[in-house]
Amino acid sequence: MKTNAVKIGNIEIGGDRVVTIAGPCSVESLEQFQQTALFTQEHGATLLRGGLFKLRTRPDSFQGLGVAGFSIVEDVKTQTQMPYISEITDTRQVEELNDVVDAFQVGSRNMHNYALLKELGQTDKPVLLKRGFSGLIDEWLHSADYIVNGGNENVILCERGIRTFETKTRNTFDINAIAYVKQFSSFPVIADPSHGTGMRELVIPVALASIAAGADGLIVEVHPNPAEAKSDGYQALTFEDFQQLMNQVKKIEPIIKRNHC
Amino acid sequence: MKTNAVKIGNIEIGGDRVVTIAGPCSVESLEQFQQTALFTQEHGATLLRGGLFKLRTRPDSFQGLGVAGFSIVEDVKTQTQMPYISEITDTRQVEELNDVVDAFQVGSRNMHNYALLKELGQTDKPVLLKRGFSGLIDEWLHSADYIVNGGNENVILCERGIRTFETKTRNTFDINAIAYVKQFSSFPVIADPSHGTGMRELVIPVALASIAAGADGLIVEVHPNPAEAKSDGYQALTFEDFQQLMNQVKKIEPIIKRNHC
Amino acid sequence: MKTNAVKIGNIEIGGDRVVTIAGPCSVESLEQFQQTALFTQEHGATLLRGGLFKLRTRPDSFQGLGVAGFSIVEDVKTQTQMPYISEITDTRQVEELNDVVDAFQVGSRNMHNYALLKELGQTDKPVLLKRGFSGLIDEWLHSADYIVNGGNENVILCERGIRTFETKTRNTFDINAIAYVKQFSSFPVIADPSHGTGMRELVIPVALASIAAGADGLIVEVHPNPAEAKSDGYQALTFEDFQQLMNQVKKIEPIIKRNHC
Amino acid sequence: MKTNAVKIGNIEIGGDRVVTIAGPCSVESLEQFQQTALFTQEHGATLLRGGLFKLRTRPDSFQGLGVAGFSIVEDVKTQTQMPYISEITDTRQVEELNDVVDAFQVGSRNMHNYALLKELGQTDKPVLLKRGFSGLIDEWLHSADYIVNGGNENVILCERGIRTFETKTRNTFDINAIAYVKQFSSFPVIADPSHGTGMRELVIPVALASIAAGADGLIVEVHPNPAEAKSDGYQALTFEDFQQLMNQVKKIEPIIKRNHC
Repeated sequence: MKTNAVKIGNIEIGGDRVVTIAGPCSVESLEQFQQTALFTQEHGATLLRGGLFKLRTRPDSFQGLGVAGFSIVEDVKTQTQMPYISEITDTRQVEELNDVVDAFQVGSRNMHNYALLKELGQTDKPVLLKRGFSGLIDEWLHSADYIVNGGNENVILCERGIRTFETKTRNTFDINAIAYVKQFSSFPVIADPSHGTGMRELVIPVALASIAAGADGLIVEVHPNPAEAKSDGYQALTFEDFQQLMNQVKKIEPIIKRNHC
Repeated sequence: MKTNAVKIGNIEIGGDRVVTIAGPCSVESLEQFQQTALFTQEHGATLLRGGLFKLRTRPDSFQGLGVAGFSIVEDVKTQTQMPYISEITDTRQVEELNDVVDAFQVGSRNMHNYALLKELGQTDKPVLLKRGFSGLIDEWLHSADYIVNGGNENVILCERGIRTFETKTRNTFDINAIAYVKQFSSFPVIADPSHGTGMRELVIPVALASIAAGADGLIVEVHPNPAEAKSDGYQALTFEDFQQLMNQVKKIEPIIKRNHC
Repeated sequence: MKTNAVKIGNIEIGGDRVVTIAGPCSVESLEQFQQTALFTQEHGATLLRGGLFKLRTRPDSFQGLGVAGFSIVEDVKTQTQMPYISEITDTRQVEELNDVVDAFQVGSRNMHNYALLKELGQTDKPVLLKRGFSGLIDEWLHSADYIVNGGNENVILCERGIRTFETKTRNTFDINAIAYVKQFSSFPVIADPSHGTGMRELVIPVALASIAAGADGLIVEVHPNPAEAKSDGYQALTFEDFQQLMNQVKKIEPIIKRNHC
Repeated sequence: MKTNAVKIGNIEIGGDRVVTIAGPCSVESLEQFQQTALFTQEHGATLLRGGLFKLRTRPDSFQGLGVAGFSIVEDVKTQTQMPYISEITDTRQVEELNDVVDAFQVGSRNMHNYALLKELGQTDKPVLLKRGFSGLIDEWLHSADYIVNGGNENVILCERGIRTFETKTRNTFDINAIAYVKQFSSFPVIADPSHGTGMRELVIPVALASIAAGADGLIVEVHPNPAEAKSDGYQALTFEDFQQLMNQVKKIEPIIKRNHC
């Protein structure tokens, strides 16, 4: 089915190019966020990611800088001129986050949070809708409808792995789902191989696989020093890894985009 | 581990008796809710359930009566003097629902909705925390901690089935989880065999099994006419089924409660 | 649906009584097997289990005594006069195992081994057919048909837990499946809470739950000294545990069997 | 980790080239098998597949031509000079199948059939070891060890999808597993997107994704007229589909093989 491209800032997702959204799991400091943004931009990323409000399984884990991180994000956006995507975790955050983000991300734990989806249907910013780690493909598409029905058609799907019996990898990246939604829906779809594998060593091959299966883009976690990251360091790419990934993406993109679009 | 009993109204959960929470999936009309409440009370139920705000996968499914159902609930509560539990689906509903419910239910889709859990930690009403349909036991206990850490210790766990490869039943009721949380946590736990099986024919045996495994109570869907229910009719017990269930619960309860408490 | 009882030796499975099959995971020595058989018999077990040919994930794990264990089994059978069930792992074992077993067990890994099922359809001994750890209920019933179609109608189903995303327990015991096959098939069904939980602490509550859900019997692992067992010691009951289990089974049995049969 | 290439006939798997194994699910007739072999060979396939002994869930489904198909296979092998792979389903088939196959395939249902694996460890033909539909990656590698420990080091792994809660696709193709075994084992690995998706429409994108993730080859089902296939027609490629797949494989192969080997 033909994909209806969605624009985040001036960047088109679902069009002729594979886009890369890069950044740390959490915004930790100006230095960390700025360094990452500049490096990834230099090597081909066109959008910024970085969590401010984090959803963590344990109440005593680092929950993000929250509002305290806004000025960091604004500085880096001004410097790089890259659009910025961040996760919204509560209906009451729409207003404040609206000032700083160019697109809202709905995280895996909130795919079934219909109150939040309805609220985002009322906004005029694009929504990156991650698949729930146990969301059926059908439920995922219905969740997108909750947003669209509210009047906001700018939904981008994001596959980030599902929960299965396999324990070697953090999640099982569902490559079939990428191929399925490209074929049977008109939403653009991007791949999150960082959460989809949960292992730095597997991020590059699964990212390339996603593009080969037709994904319109990637969202990847990158950190200047993964060993010291405040969250999910084991799945973050180093700068060197990121550069290697982008070199390969550039080679595979022209072949595949001609085939799938 | 010793269970810390929790009181909803004047009904103790986690004490010497197995309690039964009964009612329709959704409150549909005064007649339907009243009839169900009176019948189930007569046969041994001591708490009322009935959804006002429903979470539905499809945006075009019946979403509950919402605020319009409040007066129905109040009438039936006055008449029966039974405490009432209902699902909260949005942090912004706490205030209004607080007037009508004696305990808040967090549904399966919201087990990972930490904003909601934190908000409920600030209330003084007990919280029935359903396990996410793909929530790990560990994550479930951490979600309970989100509520407790806010100052509200009155958490009751509820097992309602998990998502597996099996398609014959709507969910796979995790009987191990009942036994596990009785052994290794101090929260009371109740069983929801209606969602746990998704088949009327299996509700009674799985309800009895839950009690045998140590559950402190049951929450079951009952409808005067399941074939005409506005949601989930296939898993609702008829009045006759409910009476049969309660007859058997009465026989098994004295044997088991002596063994487990 | 009415259950067609099956006899192993002179013990009826699927009739008025709940039967208990007990013994170690593997036959390790005459002393270990004899001691276990005598103790469990004294407390109510009526059938013997104990693996001779073990299926192990790792080729370097203990694979069972094999033919060397036959004389041990024969001694203990003579002494106790209890029928004996053991696992068959290869079509070529039918002839030799036939001399020593009263019923063949098909393990979880072989539920889809149709060559083996067809071969067992040709024998005149009952077959205990374990559900594959990822076998659909429908596939399980079709596997039973492979045996029945060969002319052997004496099939007993055994639920032993399925593989899910939950990692706290070794498997997820599917209590729904017990209720389902009692309702919709005529085969007797027994429960294996040892494999179904993989945790000694959960075996008793899940065993009782199975009986409450309608199971016709139990198969449990018991070992004189679980800490020194050559396989699966963490899920074996001690003698003391076994005695406690049987005390509770005796109380619950009369209530439930009247309800379900 | 460096891959140890394995030769089937004169075709190397795990070396510089991506290999394609093609053919029908079942050998049905000389015409059907010959036509498929000639067409797929013309477009780049270098090995033949086609089931003789089929494992089917229902005992009344088509079970393959068995020995009656041997002469068909021999005719087509002589004509095309392509090596042939077929599934073995019983330890007692080794001898007879040995005459006709160039490599034995162990199907998904037999990954845990250790008796069969040990038997194949004694042969001098390569073994294509499919992952069980609920086999852990670790168990898969241990199953390979069962064969290697018997003296046969020529094992080729094959990922074919695992069983998850998702119902839209027949299986969930585990792309992570491809990347994992390339990184952490030395066995070659090939992808089966036909079973991995169970939908003709998804076979091509998932095949390309597998190659991008590092797979050494593909095994795909092709049928002259899928609508009339005796088994699994819904996942078989038409001749036209196959030609399109091979065109794209040829473009992606040179880029990826340089990156991964």
